[in-house]
Amino acid sequence: MNTPDRAHIAERLQQLQAAICTALENTDGAARFSVENWNREEGGGGITRILQHGKIIEKGGVNFSAVHGHLPENIQRALKVNTSEFFATGVSIVQHPVNPNVPIIHMNVRYFELSSGEWWFGGGIDLTPHYVDENDAKWFHQQLKEVCDRFDSSWYAKFKTWADDYFYITHREETRGIGGIFFDRLTGTEQDKARFFEFLLAVGETFAPVYTHFMRQHADEPYGENEKNWQLLRRGRYVEFNLVYDKGTRFGLDTGGRIESILMSLPEKAGWFYDFKPTPKSREELTISWLRKGVQWA
Amino acid sequence: MNTPDRAHIAERLQQLQAAICTALENTDGAARFSVENWNREEGGGGITRILQHGKIIEKGGVNFSAVHGHLPENIQRALKVNTSEFFATGVSIVQHPVNPNVPIIHMNVRYFELSSGEWWFGGGIDLTPHYVDENDAKWFHQQLKEVCDRFDSSWYAKFKTWADDYFYITHREETRGIGGIFFDRLTGTEQDKARFFEFLLAVGETFAPVYTHFMRQHADEPYGENEKNWQLLRRGRYVEFNLVYDKGTRFGLDTGGRIESILMSLPEKAGWFYDFKPTPKSREELTISWLRKGVQWA
Repeated sequence: MNTPDRAHIAERLQQLQAAICTALENTDGAARFSVENWNREEGGGGITRILQHGKIIEKGGVNFSAVHGHLPENIQRALKVNTSEFFATGVSIVQHPVNPNVPIIHMNVRYFELSSGEWWFGGGIDLTPHYVDENDAKWFHQQLKEVCDRFDSSWYAKFKTWADDYFYITHREETRGIGGIFFDRLTGTEQDKARFFEFLLAVGETFAPVYTHFMRQHADEPYGENEKNWQLLRRGRYVEFNLVYDKGTRFGLDTGGRIESILMSLPEKAGWFYDFKPTPKSREELTISWLRKGVQWA
Repeated sequence: MNTPDRAHIAERLQQLQAAICTALENTDGAARFSVENWNREEGGGGITRILQHGKIIEKGGVNFSAVHGHLPENIQRALKVNTSEFFATGVSIVQHPVNPNVPIIHMNVRYFELSSGEWWFGGGIDLTPHYVDENDAKWFHQQLKEVCDRFDSSWYAKFKTWADDYFYITHREETRGIGGIFFDRLTGTEQDKARFFEFLLAVGETFAPVYTHFMRQHADEPYGENEKNWQLLRRGRYVEFNLVYDKGTRFGLDTGGRIESILMSLPEKAGWFYDFKPTPKSREELTISWLRKGVQWA
C-alpha cells in the first residue's frame, strides 16, 4: 500500500462526492444536484453540489473542497498548533428530507496537513431522526460498527462515545440525534496514513447505502401538520447545534470559506415554537427520551 | 438625585417591562403576553413574557431578569474582569411581526455589578426591517438621536457607530438591519451612575412609542408569498447573528440561564434558501444595499 499524498487524497474524495450524488439522485428520482465550482482567493477551491425540492430530499448538500493557505491565529490556537500554512480537503454532507419520517443525516470525511509536516484524518457520520425508530437506530449503528471492526475492534466503541460527546447541544442537555461515529486527529506513521485513509474511504462509502436505505424505507409513510411542525422544531435544534457548537462550521466562517457552501447544512425552513412541550407518551416525547448520551445501540 | 442601588434599578426595570407589554398588547389588539416567573438555581430569577400569534406580532418576548451568583471563568475572561461574584438585571425585547412590512425590533437595557464594586450600564435598540423604508429609517434614528441628545450631544454618533459594529454579520458582510444605538460599560462616579440610569430608562421608554408607531403604520399593508419567503430568509440571518455573534445570547447559554427565555429572540419560523439572489432593482435588492455600516440616517 503506497502512502497517499494530498493530491491523491483530494482526488479520491472528489470521486466519492460524485458517487454519492449519483446514488442520492437515483433514489430521489426527481431532482438533480447542481454543480458549482468555486475558487478560494487565498488558495484552493471546491465543488458545491446542492439538491433542492426533490421528491424525498427537500434540501441536501454534498460538498467537496481542497483548500490551502494561511491558518488564522485563532484557528491555530483552537487546533493547538503553531504552524501558519495548512492544506485541508474533505467531503461534507447534510440531507434534510421532505418527510419527517425520514431522518436527517450528516457525514464528513477530511484530511488536514500542516507545513510542519503534521497531518491527520477526521470525520464521522451521525443520524438525526425527527422521530427515533429503535430498529433503525440499531441497524444504523450496526453498519457503522461493521465498518470500524474491519479496521480495529476498539474503534466503534471509542468513536461512538466521541460522537455522543461531540454532537451534543449543551444548552438543551440533549444530543442532536442518535449519534453515530466521530473521530479526529488520526495520525501516526506513514504506514498508518495509508490504513487511516482506507478507513476514511470505507466510512465515506458507507454513506450512500445507509441513507438510501432510509429514504426508500420511509419516504412514502404518511404524516400531517403535527409531524411537519415537529420536524421544524427538530430542525431548529439542528440549526442551534451547527451555529453554536459545530467546529467545522466555525472553521469555515473564520477562514472566510464560501458562506453558502458552509451553511448548506441549514434546512430550508426551521422553527422555534416557544416552550414546546410534547404530549405525554407521544412519539415526540419518546424521541426526546432517546436524545441522550451513552445509549448502546450496537 | 440619589444614587440608585441594584434593588431600585431592578424594580424600575420590572416596571418598564410591564409598561411595554401593556403598550404592545393594546396596539396588537388580539393576543396577550403570558407571565412566567422563574428562579435560577444559583441565584435570582426573572419574568418571561411571551406573546404568540397576535394580530400584528407573531412571536414576541419582553423579558426581565435579575440574577446573581458566581461568574464562570470563561465569562470573566470575556469581560476582562477578575471577580467571581456578579449581579445582573435587565430587560430584553425582540418582536417578530406577522407582516413582512413591519420591522423586527430588539431592545436591551441592563445593569451589571461585581463584588469588587465595579458596575456598568449597557444596552441599545436596533431595527431590522425585512424591507428597508428610508423614511422609517430616518425617523427611527431621529428618535434615538433625540433621546441621546438630552444627555450628551456626542452620544448618538458614538452609540450609532457602536451599533453598526456590534450588529454586524461578519460572515455575510452585512449589518443585521439598519442599526440604532448600542452602548456598554457606561461607568464612572456615583453621580454618573444616577445620570446613566436616567439615560437607560429614557432609552427603555422610547421603545413602546417607536415600535407601536411602526405596528400601526404597516400592519395592514398587503403582502404575498414572495414577501413571506423573503421574511423567512431575513429571519434566518437574524438567527445567524443571535447564535453566532450576540454576546447576550452567549452569556445566557454559558451561565446556564433559562434557555427558552434566552432563545425567545428566535422567530417562530425562519428559512435558508440556498444561494438566494434578489431580482435586480427589486425591494429585496434595495434592502440589501442598505445593510452596511456608516449610513447617516439622522
